[in-house]
Formats: sequence, structure tokens, C-alpha cells
Amino acid sequence: MTIEIISIGNELLAGHTMNTNASKIAQALLPHGFSVDRITTLPDQLPSLKEGIQEAMERASFLIITGGLGPTGDDLTRGVMAELYQTTLEHSEKIAADLIRRFGKELPTLSDQAMVLKGATIIPNPLGTAPGFILEGKSVAIVLPGVPSQMEVMLNEVVKYLEKKTSKNHYVETLYLALLSEQEVDPYLRKLEQENPGIDIGICPGYGTLSIYFHGRKKKKLIPVRNQIAKHFHTHVYSTTDKRIEVALHEWMVKHQKTLAAGESCSGGHLAATLTALPGASDYFLGSIVSYSNHLKKTALNVSPKTLETKGAVSKETVIEMGEGVKKLTGADYIITLSGIAGPTGGTSDKPVGTIWSTIQTPEKTYVGLIPLKPSAKKRSILIRYSVTYLLASLYRYLTYNIEPYT
Amino acid sequence: MTIEIISIGNELLAGHTMNTNASKIAQALLPHGFSVDRITTLPDQLPSLKEGIQEAMERASFLIITGGLGPTGDDLTRGVMAELYQTTLEHSEKIAADLIRRFGKELPTLSDQAMVLKGATIIPNPLGTAPGFILEGKSVAIVLPGVPSQMEVMLNEVVKYLEKKTSKNHYVETLYLALLSEQEVDPYLRKLEQENPGIDIGICPGYGTLSIYFHGRKKKKLIPVRNQIAKHFHTHVYSTTDKRIEVALHEWMVKHQKTLAAGESCSGGHLAATLTALPGASDYFLGSIVSYSNHLKKTALNVSPKTLETKGAVSKETVIEMGEGVKKLTGADYIITLSGIAGPTGGTSDKPVGTIWSTIQTPEKTYVGLIPLKPSAKKRSILIRYSVTYLLASLYRYLTYNIEPYT
Repeated sequence: MTIEIISIGNELLAGHTMNTNASKIAQALLPHGFSVDRITTLPDQLPSLKEGIQEAMERASFLIITGGLGPTGDDLTRGVMAELYQTTLEHSEKIAADLIRRFGKELPTLSDQAMVLKGATIIPNPLGTAPGFILEGKSVAIVLPGVPSQMEVMLNEVVKYLEKKTSKNHYVETLYLALLSEQEVDPYLRKLEQENPGIDIGICPGYGTLSIYFHGRKKKKLIPVRNQIAKHFHTHVYSTTDKRIEVALHEWMVKHQKTLAAGESCSGGHLAATLTALPGASDYFLGSIVSYSNHLKKTALNVSPKTLETKGAVSKETVIEMGEGVKKLTGADYIITLSGIAGPTGGTSDKPVGTIWSTIQTPEKTYVGLIPLKPSAKKRSILIRYSVTYLLASLYRYLTYNIEPYT
Repeated sequence: MTIEIISIGNELLAGHTMNTNASKIAQALLPHGFSVDRITTLPDQLPSLKEGIQEAMERASFLIITGGLGPTGDDLTRGVMAELYQTTLEHSEKIAADLIRRFGKELPTLSDQAMVLKGATIIPNPLGTAPGFILEGKSVAIVLPGVPSQMEVMLNEVVKYLEKKTSKNHYVETLYLALLSEQEVDPYLRKLEQENPGIDIGICPGYGTLSIYFHGRKKKKLIPVRNQIAKHFHTHVYSTTDKRIEVALHEWMVKHQKTLAAGESCSGGHLAATLTALPGASDYFLGSIVSYSNHLKKTALNVSPKTLETKGAVSKETVIEMGEGVKKLTGADYIITLSGIAGPTGGTSDKPVGTIWSTIQTPEKTYVGLIPLKPSAKKRSILIRYSVTYLLASLYRYLTYNIEPYT
């Protein structure tokens, strides 16, 4: 049993758009025991499109195809699939009725988007106008729209279909570690890999986190190996299911009915945006004062003009006063603040780019320190992302394993 | 002349790692007149790897291959290429000397990484240990390491090589429009496409923006067509070079020496994070009060308890008071506020998910309105992204074309 993904779109070949769909599909299939054998990106263009799909039909048992289902002139997928599966397009009353219900009778693309392939099983698209569909033949083609949000909500149906139609060929387990480098972990993983033939262990470093993947054909052999690593790196473990450190912190806060607030400067709202991307963040997160200007540090957070003048906005003293200001405004149980130089300009010999002061305030004590950045992390976006992860992970480790921040 | 990219790596097929290399290569080639015809991702595994490359050799004149050049057991690319181009691996004194100079004699992978293909032209790797190389045959294979930072610095050599060896086949121009739907633009583009044979026009919808791409074999024919569309959709144009609406707004603010601040609720810092992702944002952006809790709306922004009680946090009155609070704290020339229900829970029949009140405050007037969301945009992350783009684009259109917000 082989599975191939085909992503269709000139914008993907031009590099204008990253092929996130292929990654999302692979990510969605793996936990269910299905691995992807090849990914091909093809243009919105005949005959290349048809040739590419035809070649894949020769190789694979299942094709998952995204893109080219819209109503515009460069959307060719339905026509090509009709030719390759020797069927025709026909008007679907059911799809038309659903489109009218959701978008109104005046939907200009109604007549086009209600055309479906005869004999195909429809996968409803709850968000957009183009339904997905499944064509069964020598190869099975599962065709989804290219708009990522629409494609994603339909993936569940794809997994269900595969589970019904074929046997699993591959298992994966995951483990997520915070505040460790690849070099600190790799030798131990390689040793375990040698001791456990048939299990591949991969590391994928993030910014402040490591994702460890355990691949193998026997699910029950993977978990003991994962547990062994989790035990070894105990106080760095934050999840076996989700890469996002903010999910672990969110769950802790909600479970313990505690609240969190922030005072941000160089991170510019990135910390708040990270936490509030999760539904239900308002259950514990009270807000963030993004005091990007010095003036706002004074008016909103009551940082003293003298501190800003004598110590500067990027200083131990300023972040401590920011934290006091946030406490006064919110009364939160836990408070994080940071102020630094994210670059690329603004650095001095005294305070080079990457100098980021921060606090983690708990009901017991206020911890203050510099974010420990690697010399390679000099890019603005990386500095910000790493700082946010570092602080969230440090707070999580404090709460869960009683590890003091900045140690 | 056809160009294909082949990306090698199990981590790409598992979805653990996004295939950024393929996008980077395509992006680097396009401005020089080279377009990519297909992208294929293959596993670190025989025989699939060999078969995939062999198939591409049949189709394409140039292959750009990344990955699998390292010293570990799953790095198969050199061996496969030697077989396919009927050559052998040999020790290179020159590469060995360079590796010793950069990494020292003790480099454990020295003997492996100094092995190169006989007859290949070497592309030096200034950052890592694995050199790239070019093999000329019926197809030309240009092979680069998979580590993105290493691959990227070597791309320049690839462009130079292609410019020497082949003629340009493709040009691209871009145009970015805000607050228009694909359906509003597509018919006009198709008409222009028909009037201008040899020019392909593609649309890529974002959240509140459209990227329009003009592809063709004659550069000087593209610009008049782009200009014609820009003229037609005049007040929606915000860039010909950058998809990000925040870049256009940033440039306007800095040029006119005006300041901007925000008061956020449901967007949770996402608006501030979007603006501050750009270097130099502190030149005009003063900050954002992310008043996620009602308490913080009162303490930081002075929203009256009565308003919150009688009208609710998601109301016209609350966002207006939030704006007044931000004005008092920052004195900014322009202020954006928003408060709404981003979901998935928290909606009521009165105020369903997607109800987002907002203000755009200018020195002349405060505009207030609901974000006009499409019924399809019900996902939390999309609601937030679209709202932020809508507000930034509305402010940009007001400043540049005098278009009143919410009209």
C-alpha cells in the first residue's frame, strides 16, 4: 500500500506560497498509521498536470490531491480527473442546494461549483464552495480543495476513509522537550536506536523545543522507548501530543485556576498572540501591556522616568517595574515581562542585539534574568520566538518540576 | 528547457519539516527568468529515491536536488547519483584541505565528506561540511545540501550556472490588492489574459488580500498588463513588491512621521505582533493594550464598568471607550481597537462567533463598525487574521486613497 500526495498550483511552483497542505496531510495521516511515500507539486497547466497525476496513478494505491477545484479558468483538476477516471461532470442538486443554503442564490459560481464527477463520493466542504471527492479505480484518488483552512477540516474524512479501506503500515509516537539542544539529546537517542532495531528516532529542533519522533511498524514497541527517553530527560518533558509549549502552560493554568498576565516590549505582542491563539485562553490569560514606546511604559505601567533615563528601557530595573505595573493593573497570579533589543538595528557595544531582560513573577518571588540566546540566533523573528518560548517553558518547568527560572 | 526540484528527506514526507528549500529555490530562480516545472519530495530510501530521480531525468533538462549529502547512513544521494550518471566516488584533496582548515583535522566525518563524484563540478559549501556539485549529462543535476541555511548561500552559484548554460524562459511581476474577493477580480483578469496571449495571470487569495501574479516569457509585456489592473482596481492596490499589508502601512507611517497605537481584546496581541514583526516598527508604533479581561479594560483603558455591564465587552460603546483610553495613554495620531467573539465558544444568538466591533480613530474622526466577515470565516485563527488585515488595510486605504473605513 503506497500513498502519494499531489499538490496543484502555480503559486507553489513559483515559491510564492509554501506547500503547507502536503505537510498538514502527512501530519494528519501519521498518527493513524499511514505514511506518505512521495509528494509531487504540479502546475495549473495541461498537459503537465495530467501527466503528473497519471504517473502517480501508476505507482500509488492512494493519491491525495489538493488544489485546482475552484471556479476560475486555471482550475483544471475536475476536468483532468474526469478524463483519467473516464467519467463526466454532472450537476448535483444536493450540492447546489447546500451552496444556496450557505451562500445564497446569487452565488455567481453556483453553477460551476455544483458540478461534480459522476460516480465520485463527495466529501462535503463546510467552509468553502468546492466540495472534495473520492474516485475509486486501480488507484484511489482523494481530491480536496487547495485552500488550507478548507482542506484541513476535510482531512478527518480522509483518515476515516483510509482506515476503512486499507491497513496501517506505519506508526509514530512523539515526545516534546523544552530547553535542551539537539546535541544534548542526540547521542542518547542513537544509543537507544541501536538497542531497539526496527525503531527510527528523529529529532526536529524548534526554537527552544525539540520534537522527538519514534517511527516503526509495531506500535506497542514504540511506547516503552519513548517512556525511557521521557524518564531520562524528565524535567524537560512538557507533552507527548502537542509541540506547542503554550498548550501545556494553558492546561496547567486552567487546571489550577491560576491567572497569567504579561508586560511586553521587544516581543511586541507576540507572547500574548501565542497564548491567545488557543481557544479558551481567556480562562486564565488576563492580557498584556505591549508598551513598545517608553512613554507607554510610564503611562500604563508606571515605570519611573528616572529608571528609564538612568538604566534604559532594556534593563533589569525596567522589566521589574513593568512587572509591578502589570500586577497592579491585573492582579494576576503569574506575570511575565520582557524588554530587549530584537534588532537588526538598535544594538550598542553595551547592549548588543539579543540583549533581552525578562522577569517571571510568581506569588512567591520575582525571578529576573537575561534570555540565554545562542550566538546563532541573531535574526529578529528568531530572537522574539525563542524568547517567548523560553519564558513560557521556564514558567512551565517551574510550575511542574519546581525548576527555578534562569538556572 | 525544463527545471525540476527534487527534495530528499523522510522528515519532509512525515510532515515534521516544511519543505522551505523548494520554495526558496523557486523564489531565487524566478527573478532571473527561470521557472520551476515540478517539485518532487522523495524518501531517504532505496529504490524509491533512485526511481524518482531517474524519472525526473527523463523529463527535465535541469534537476536541482537537495538533501541526503551528509555523512550518516540515511544519506544516499551521492551513491545514487554516481549510479545514475555512471561515475564513481573519489577522495578530493582540495575538499579535505578546506574541511581541515575550517573544522580541524579531528572532524570525525572528514573522510566521508571529502568523497566527491568523479567528473562533477564542485559548488563549495561555506557553512557546512557537505559540498554541492553539478553533473552534466542528458539532464544536468545540480545537487545541494538539505540544511536550509547552507543550501541558501549556495543558490547564487546555481543561478550563475543556469544563466551561463541556458536562456531565460520565464518572467514574473506581482501586484497586491486589499479587501477584494477573488470573484470580484477574476473575470477582469481572464479578459486581460485573453487580450494578452503569452501572459498567464494567477490569483492567490490571502486573508483580506489578493496576490496577483503575471507570468510570461517577455518581461516588457508584463508591466503594462500589471499597470492596467492596478489602474482598474486603483483604491485597492497597496504594493507591487510585498504581500504584507503591514509593510505598506509601516512605510506610510514612517514617511509621514505619524504614530499608531492599538487596544486589542479578541485579537489578543495579534495586531501588535503583526506590526512589530517588521524591523523599525518602533519608529511609529507606540504599543497595544491587550485588555483580554474586562478588569484590564477598566484598569488600563478606563472603560466604564457601566458600559461593560449594560452593553457588554463586545459592543460599539466598549471599543470606542477602549480607543479613548489608548489615546490618553499614548497620544498616538491613529488608533485601532477591536473586541469580539473569536470562538469557537462564547457566541450567543445576539452576538454569534464572528461578531467583532472595532474602531479606526484618525485625528479627524473616530470610525466604528463591525468587521465584515464572510460566513466561511468561522475559524478562530482566520477570524483573528482577517480582522487584523481588514483594519490595517482599511486604515491604509483611508490614508492613501481617502476611502472611509467600513464602507
